[in-house]
Amino acid sequence: MEREHLLTALHGVIPAAVTPTTPDGEVDTEGLAANLRAWRTLGLSGYLVLGSTGEMPLLSEFERMMAVEVARREIPTDQLLIVGTGQQSTRATIEFTRQVAESGADAALVVTPNYYVPALTVEAFVRHYTAVADASPIPVLLYSVPPLTGVTLPVEAIARLAEHPNIVGIKDSSGQPRHLHAIRQHTPPSFAVLSGSAVYSLGALADGAADGLILAIANVAPEVCVAMYRAVREGDLEGARVLYRRLLTLNEVLSAHGIGGIKAAVAARGWAGGPPRSPLAAPDEEGVERIRAAVHKLVL
Amino acid sequence: MEREHLLTALHGVIPAAVTPTTPDGEVDTEGLAANLRAWRTLGLSGYLVLGSTGEMPLLSEFERMMAVEVARREIPTDQLLIVGTGQQSTRATIEFTRQVAESGADAALVVTPNYYVPALTVEAFVRHYTAVADASPIPVLLYSVPPLTGVTLPVEAIARLAEHPNIVGIKDSSGQPRHLHAIRQHTPPSFAVLSGSAVYSLGALADGAADGLILAIANVAPEVCVAMYRAVREGDLEGARVLYRRLLTLNEVLSAHGIGGIKAAVAARGWAGGPPRSPLAAPDEEGVERIRAAVHKLVL
Amino acid sequence: MEREHLLTALHGVIPAAVTPTTPDGEVDTEGLAANLRAWRTLGLSGYLVLGSTGEMPLLSEFERMMAVEVARREIPTDQLLIVGTGQQSTRATIEFTRQVAESGADAALVVTPNYYVPALTVEAFVRHYTAVADASPIPVLLYSVPPLTGVTLPVEAIARLAEHPNIVGIKDSSGQPRHLHAIRQHTPPSFAVLSGSAVYSLGALADGAADGLILAIANVAPEVCVAMYRAVREGDLEGARVLYRRLLTLNEVLSAHGIGGIKAAVAARGWAGGPPRSPLAAPDEEGVERIRAAVHKLVL
Amino acid sequence: MEREHLLTALHGVIPAAVTPTTPDGEVDTEGLAANLRAWRTLGLSGYLVLGSTGEMPLLSEFERMMAVEVARREIPTDQLLIVGTGQQSTRATIEFTRQVAESGADAALVVTPNYYVPALTVEAFVRHYTAVADASPIPVLLYSVPPLTGVTLPVEAIARLAEHPNIVGIKDSSGQPRHLHAIRQHTPPSFAVLSGSAVYSLGALADGAADGLILAIANVAPEVCVAMYRAVREGDLEGARVLYRRLLTLNEVLSAHGIGGIKAAVAARGWAGGPPRSPLAAPDEEGVERIRAAVHKLVL
Repeated sequence: MEREHLLTALHGVIPAAVTPTTPDGEVDTEGLAANLRAWRTLGLSGYLVLGSTGEMPLLSEFERMMAVEVARREIPTDQLLIVGTGQQSTRATIEFTRQVAESGADAALVVTPNYYVPALTVEAFVRHYTAVADASPIPVLLYSVPPLTGVTLPVEAIARLAEHPNIVGIKDSSGQPRHLHAIRQHTPPSFAVLSGSAVYSLGALADGAADGLILAIANVAPEVCVAMYRAVREGDLEGARVLYRRLLTLNEVLSAHGIGGIKAAVAARGWAGGPPRSPLAAPDEEGVERIRAAVHKLVL
Repeated sequence: MEREHLLTALHGVIPAAVTPTTPDGEVDTEGLAANLRAWRTLGLSGYLVLGSTGEMPLLSEFERMMAVEVARREIPTDQLLIVGTGQQSTRATIEFTRQVAESGADAALVVTPNYYVPALTVEAFVRHYTAVADASPIPVLLYSVPPLTGVTLPVEAIARLAEHPNIVGIKDSSGQPRHLHAIRQHTPPSFAVLSGSAVYSLGALADGAADGLILAIANVAPEVCVAMYRAVREGDLEGARVLYRRLLTLNEVLSAHGIGGIKAAVAARGWAGGPPRSPLAAPDEEGVERIRAAVHKLVL
Repeated sequence: MEREHLLTALHGVIPAAVTPTTPDGEVDTEGLAANLRAWRTLGLSGYLVLGSTGEMPLLSEFERMMAVEVARREIPTDQLLIVGTGQQSTRATIEFTRQVAESGADAALVVTPNYYVPALTVEAFVRHYTAVADASPIPVLLYSVPPLTGVTLPVEAIARLAEHPNIVGIKDSSGQPRHLHAIRQHTPPSFAVLSGSAVYSLGALADGAADGLILAIANVAPEVCVAMYRAVREGDLEGARVLYRRLLTLNEVLSAHGIGGIKAAVAARGWAGGPPRSPLAAPDEEGVERIRAAVHKLVL
Repeated sequence: MEREHLLTALHGVIPAAVTPTTPDGEVDTEGLAANLRAWRTLGLSGYLVLGSTGEMPLLSEFERMMAVEVARREIPTDQLLIVGTGQQSTRATIEFTRQVAESGADAALVVTPNYYVPALTVEAFVRHYTAVADASPIPVLLYSVPPLTGVTLPVEAIARLAEHPNIVGIKDSSGQPRHLHAIRQHTPPSFAVLSGSAVYSLGALADGAADGLILAIANVAPEVCVAMYRAVREGDLEGARVLYRRLLTLNEVLSAHGIGGIKAAVAARGWAGGPPRSPLAAPDEEGVERIRAAVHKLVL
């Protein structure tokens, strides 16, 4: 995918796709394929597989490659496929990034390591991401998700990494306006900033912090996310706010259940979900009922 | 001030006024009076004195009362005067709230205590604020400012306190969309939510988290804040964003210097500033120069 | 009190005395006097009044001075009286320190400010404490109590302040070996390090982190604290450990109740306690029962 | 290894062995073998391989198995070999634990997962560790290392897990007396508590928090660690404190450099070290010099 095409696709809504599972917890590649087909006409500007929502840290190497191959097969080559490739070591990250590039991924989303926290200095991050970007055949997106990892990629590191020709943007899931605007301020306008927070989505688009969104909730309500994105881009703030409130209401119900909740909600939409892998847990029956009700209310 | 009038005034922009000081560090009541007069025609919907920006925790009881009396004298009685009254003990908070009510304050902004952190449970907050609201002759606004105090007023406490007839709203300076929206969701629509964060100001107005703004930067750029507020309220998102960017640029320069920076910027506008009280510090000469340049750029 | 005498007294056990209150919450000066008399022969090496346990932040200026005067009257002048004097502003801290010096305090314990957290840099702390120590007629002890204030006095600041001729030591209540040993390593041997943590008391004496202890639990079990201190100083580690376990058992019961629990336990010993001031709370009846049982078990 | 023998071995000093590397960053199995042989007569009570210090999260599956096999070959079967086996998913942890058991490991040290932080509730930890302990052919040690992972295994989870017949103890590297004593208090006396903190080592042995030590610094100064352990066990507190101070002095120099510093220090002792794997970094030349000097001073 050409750079310009890629950058255009980053301005939009991208679901952080779940990795569907069978009831006994195996990766359901047919379910993944079906989901990607079902989403094809909804206005999404690309797809992320093997993100946090895709349970990448909980899958085996074989399962990961399987998911990438299915995704590339289902997603037309002119549509953006981002794959999460970050591992704890630079070496393993490079290796896996090369593999997914060979399998046709358009860009790699590289989450911060989060073991050895005191070693994760600005210098260490710059070294790590530079090595990955140097070695990667495909463009790299930085990925900072402190709510899940406890680690924040510092703005100073981002500013330096944004100069690397093979690093094209960042997914920041801090949900913190201060952090996203600091990134904005210290990176060139061509550096794509995507918010990974449903709560700070309309705000981030409205106040200029973000170019696009990569959202877990876009698994469940892709149409609402896309409509909200378009409304705010067209200056229809009131319309966008109505859609945003619907997303927030759903998000409130889901957020108590983490990825298990997202997958249950995806299933409630008739798409492929399944239980998340331990130590994550599926919602209990009562939770599933609440999620189902919220999904049905949203869809109607 | 009648309740309805008060609530209307909370939908707008309110400066968290600095307490001007003479070069030798004494409270400059004439400066305070002059500032309030200068701001009178700028479209602000009220004034906060003795907030964090007003250095309340660093002033003596006598200085505090002096500031309130000057403020009330300068602010027409049909315009909203909010006074910060929160102390570490419930008893001292009640006493001071009663005093400022007698001096004509329209509402009390009661910051969370922040000593004895482990004792500050939901129950303790509910007990504390209920006692204050019961005893206060004037409406109470909750005030949570974790960046300065390290303490967050929990949503559960806010939800319970919002039912108190004498608690009318909250100033939340977390700058966190997740927190403001959770407050929104668990309080009635009449409960006023004001963001105290310049960075999460346009976003909070656009995405519906906040009704109004109480900002330190409104000391320095009241006109820009008011214009931004009006633009977003009128649906002119693009216009609002242009103004917001100007605020952010200024904010970035000021934020390195805390309240000392705000006061230097106020002085750069030709209004009364002065050094903050130790342990706060005034910016050094280079800092003052940068601040002056940023203020002049903004004003032009 | 001469410097050498003072330093000797800091090597020992000092209770962070509660401020007794009457059932309706007023300061009980007679109770304070009675407590100090009751403790006189128990081997304590000094007394702290108006510490965190003494509820200093919750008392009025008048109540504070009353407590100091009672304490000085009851404590023989050749015995160490330390008074907590730290306020949010440098100015108020200096003023109050001078007052307590005039009332006969031997040393001032100056807690870190804890409002305006981002302003509390190493430079700010050095400026603040240097100004206080310059102005104080009596020696100053630094005081860092992150569990209650959320603020840690950084080792770098301590190292610089330890060079001030009027700063003689620190009470560190972090309970963190790493922090106390870092202080040790960056201050001269004559700089007194006192641990304010009951849990890290035997450990701190045994591994050399602390010279002495200033403990809330020494209100309740002064004899056990003193006996443990002497045992470890005399090399009887096993004996010290037996006493320490008894303290820990009591501490576990008390720690759920904060200062209200300490005061209930003091009352259970037949000394003067009373309710803490709001937002602190007294334990409920069940809590009081558990505390009583734990105290009786300890004393027998 | 029989349970009783295992428990005896946990009362002692165990090095968290580095995984030596060649200059080009490959695992140096000969170096690992040589280190284990060199340590054999020093009084260590067992060995941990593939701990945090062993860079487990940065090694490939193949490298991990290689390290285990070399370790088992070099360590006599009557001596304790613990292997770190914790992965992000329960499934991968079980699989790897089974493999190392087949390769002859005596016990598995299972670090907490640290991705999906909000999902890591007490329930999730209990479920995760119970599944691992149920499936593991060898006894399991819990492992909580918040300084490196940002995650603390809660005392409530530990208390419940301590009842599992196949969970024999915990390595806690919090360095926090409060946490270790809480674990002690809520687990049976037979549950082994090992401190992973060099700073809270003598203190933890002296005050009864810990039965044994698993230390990175025991790679560099095994003799000093063992001598300190024996001194405190024999009641020679003064002797123990002298040795502890020597360890602290070394630790201070090393701690700035993380695992890279430990490996440089191991090399300075003439044993096998090598560069750590990125994102970890080796110390620069100046750092290496300081480390060498500190090691030489210690050994003399």
